[in-house]
Amino acid sequence: MRVLVIGAGGVGEAIVKISSKFESFSFICVADIDEDRARYVARQTNLDDSAVAYSKLDASSVTEIVALASAFEIDAIMNACDPRFVMPIFDAAYEYGCTYVDMAMSLSKPHPSDPYSKCGVMLGDAQFEKANLWEEKGLLALVGVGVEPGLSDIFAAYASKHLFSQIDEIGVRDGANLVVEGYDFAPTFSIWTTIEECLNPPLIYEANKGFYTTEPFSEAEVFDFPGGIGPVECVNVEHEEVVLIPKWLKANRVTFKYGLGDEFISVLKTLHKLGLDNAQKITVGEVSVSPRDVVGACLPNPIDLGPMMHGKTCAGTYVSGLDKDSKARAVYLYHVVDNDETMAKWGCQAVVWQTAINPVIALELISSGVWAARGVLGPEAFDPDPFLDSLVKHESPWGMREEIV
Amino acid sequence: MRVLVIGAGGVGEAIVKISSKFESFSFICVADIDEDRARYVARQTNLDDSAVAYSKLDASSVTEIVALASAFEIDAIMNACDPRFVMPIFDAAYEYGCTYVDMAMSLSKPHPSDPYSKCGVMLGDAQFEKANLWEEKGLLALVGVGVEPGLSDIFAAYASKHLFSQIDEIGVRDGANLVVEGYDFAPTFSIWTTIEECLNPPLIYEANKGFYTTEPFSEAEVFDFPGGIGPVECVNVEHEEVVLIPKWLKANRVTFKYGLGDEFISVLKTLHKLGLDNAQKITVGEVSVSPRDVVGACLPNPIDLGPMMHGKTCAGTYVSGLDKDSKARAVYLYHVVDNDETMAKWGCQAVVWQTAINPVIALELISSGVWAARGVLGPEAFDPDPFLDSLVKHESPWGMREEIV
Repeated sequence: MRVLVIGAGGVGEAIVKISSKFESFSFICVADIDEDRARYVARQTNLDDSAVAYSKLDASSVTEIVALASAFEIDAIMNACDPRFVMPIFDAAYEYGCTYVDMAMSLSKPHPSDPYSKCGVMLGDAQFEKANLWEEKGLLALVGVGVEPGLSDIFAAYASKHLFSQIDEIGVRDGANLVVEGYDFAPTFSIWTTIEECLNPPLIYEANKGFYTTEPFSEAEVFDFPGGIGPVECVNVEHEEVVLIPKWLKANRVTFKYGLGDEFISVLKTLHKLGLDNAQKITVGEVSVSPRDVVGACLPNPIDLGPMMHGKTCAGTYVSGLDKDSKARAVYLYHVVDNDETMAKWGCQAVVWQTAINPVIALELISSGVWAARGVLGPEAFDPDPFLDSLVKHESPWGMREEIV
Repeated sequence: MRVLVIGAGGVGEAIVKISSKFESFSFICVADIDEDRARYVARQTNLDDSAVAYSKLDASSVTEIVALASAFEIDAIMNACDPRFVMPIFDAAYEYGCTYVDMAMSLSKPHPSDPYSKCGVMLGDAQFEKANLWEEKGLLALVGVGVEPGLSDIFAAYASKHLFSQIDEIGVRDGANLVVEGYDFAPTFSIWTTIEECLNPPLIYEANKGFYTTEPFSEAEVFDFPGGIGPVECVNVEHEEVVLIPKWLKANRVTFKYGLGDEFISVLKTLHKLGLDNAQKITVGEVSVSPRDVVGACLPNPIDLGPMMHGKTCAGTYVSGLDKDSKARAVYLYHVVDNDETMAKWGCQAVVWQTAINPVIALELISSGVWAARGVLGPEAFDPDPFLDSLVKHESPWGMREEIV
C-alpha cells in the first residue's frame, strides 16, 4: 500500500516508525508545512530510499494534497494533523479517490444560543454529511482511529460483541501519571487540541434523550486507573467516541471523561477566562495572531519532551450492563503504555506512540482486506477481534478489569 | 508652562482633563503612537485651540521626542506611557533640556543567579545613574509621581516630617473593591504593567540588610482598607516606593504590598507558568509577537471599562515607629477614590484618575516654584505639605487612621 502521511508532528513520526514493523506499507510519503521536519520523519522508516519521499505541503489546500497524492500514486492518506485540517485532507482524499484514515474528526461548533445544554454542529458532522458520496464512489474513510477515539471505540465494540447482552453505559476514561522533569507546566499532547476538546461543551449521549451538552468540566469523578496509575479526577470532555459509538452500538448512555487533574483544569479555565483559548486571529500591535497559537508557541513542543517524561498513560472504556446470561456486569477494557518503554524501544513518547499504533494496525487490516467497507465509518463499525489480536501480536497487550457492580 | 504629554491612554486622558482645573498649563501637546487617540485626548482640555496640539509619536525614539519638544518649545514632558518607554522619554527630555515627570520608573532586571533573594538591576537604576548629568545641566526629573509611587511617597514624607521621631516600617498598601460588570476577568489597570510589577521578584528594604528580594506573592497579609473597602489579602510586589523612600527618608523597613486577591494571583501565576508573561517577542507561525502583548490584546482595554466599574480604590502608606514624644504609634495615611464619582465628574475611571491627579499637582508646584530642585528626584525629596493641601483644594481629600500598636 502506498501511503501519504500528512503531518510530521509527534504522531506522524511515531506512525512512520511503527509502520516499519508492518508489511502493508510499500511506500511512504511524509508531508508537512515544515519541509525539514517532513524530511527528518521520512528518514525514520526502514523502507528502501526508493520507497520513501517527503514534501512540503500546506494541509489546508485540497489542490496541493490532490497533486501530491497523484504524483506518488497514493492508495491511502493518513491524516496526522491537528483537527483544523480534517476537512481539506478528507475532501482531497475523496477528490483524488483513495482510502482516508484520521485520528480526530471535523470540528464542532457550540449551539449559538444554548451552548451548555444543546448541541450545535457536532464533531464529525461535516464528514458524515458526505458519507453517501464516499459510499457511491466506493471509497472508505475510516475516521477516529487513534487511541481515543479509536482503540476506545474498539473496546466498546468488543464488549458489545463478546461480553454484554444489554449495555447501560459506555464511558471512555483516560488518565495518566506522566510527569515532565524540569518544566513547571508541560502538556504531553497538542495544547491546541487539548484546549479545543476541553473547553468545548462536553457531549453526552442518552438513548432516551439523544445528544446533549453540559458546562465544561462537569460531572467530576475519581476513576481508579490500572497499571499503577491509581485514582485520578476525571471530568466530562467533548470527544469523538460519544458521537461514534451510538452510530453502531446500542447503549443507554455514552460519555467521555478525561483525567485532567486539578492543575490542568485550573490552567484551562484561566486561559478561557482571559480569552487566550481563542483560535481566531486577533490584532496585536502590527500583527495578526491567534491567542491559542501563542499559548502553543510558549509551551515546550510535546515532541521534545519524551526523554524528560516518566510514568504511564492509560486509555480505556468502562462498560456496564447485563452480561450474556443477563447478570449485572461492569468491566474496564484498557491499554496502558509506559513512557520509559516507548522511549527505549521506539524513541517516541507514550501518548503519541499510543495514538499512532492504532491507525497503523487499522491500515494493515484494510490493506489485507480483513476490514473491508465503503463510506465514512468509525472503528466500531468493524470486527474488533483482529484489531485487538494485532495489538497483542505487536507486543502492546490490552487488559480487562472486572468492576464491582 | 508648555507641556508635552506622551501617551494618550487612560492616564494621559485623565491628565489632560484634570489639567483644565489648574493654571500652570498654558499649552498642551498630546502625543501617542495612535494619532487618532492623541487627537481625541487633546480635545479633552478646555484650553483654546491655539494652545493645544497633538501628534503621532513613537515613544521609543529619542530623536522623534526631541524634535516634537523643540517644535512646540516645551517646558515639561509628562510621561504617561508604560514603563518600557521610560528611558527614551527620560533621555529625550535631558537631551532637549526640559523638566521631566513620570509615574513609573525604568525597569528592573532580576539577579541572574539568585533572583528571589538578591537584587539585580533595580527599578530606576538607569535613571538615577544619570542624576549627576541632570544636576549639572540644571534640570529636574521628578520620577515616580503618580499615586503609587507618588502620593504614597508623599504620605511617607508627611509622616516623617510631622508624626514620627523614629520610623520602624513604611509599608505602602494598595487595595480596592472594584468590580467590572459583564466581564469574567477585567483588570482595571494596564495588564502589561501589572504583570511586570507582580511577577518580578518583590523588593524589600531593611536598614541593617539593605535591599533584597523574595519569591513573588510573598508575606501575604490581610489589610483592612478604609472607605468601606474592608479586608483584602495583600502580597509583596516590586514597586518604586521601596527604592525611592530609603533614598530620602529614614526607616528600618520599607515594603509594598498589593491587594491582588486570590483570583488575580492565580491568573498571574498561570500566565507565568505558561510563559505568557514573556515581554520578549517569540515566533508564532509566520509572525513575531510578545506573549504579554497578546494577553493585553485579549483583555478589555481598561480605558473602556469605566462605565461598567463600580467600587472604590485605596492607595496609602502604613507607618509605624515612635511619635514626636517617643511613644509607639502607627498610622495609615490614605486616599480613597470612588469610581462612580470620578466617572460622573471627570469621565475617568477611578484607578487612572487617581494616578493622574498627582503628576498634575506636582507640575503645578514645579511651575509655580514651590517645588524647586535639580537632578533626578522622587516625590519624598520635596515638602509634602503644599502637595497634600492642593489635593484637598481639588476636592480629593486624603485621610489618616490611627492604628492599634
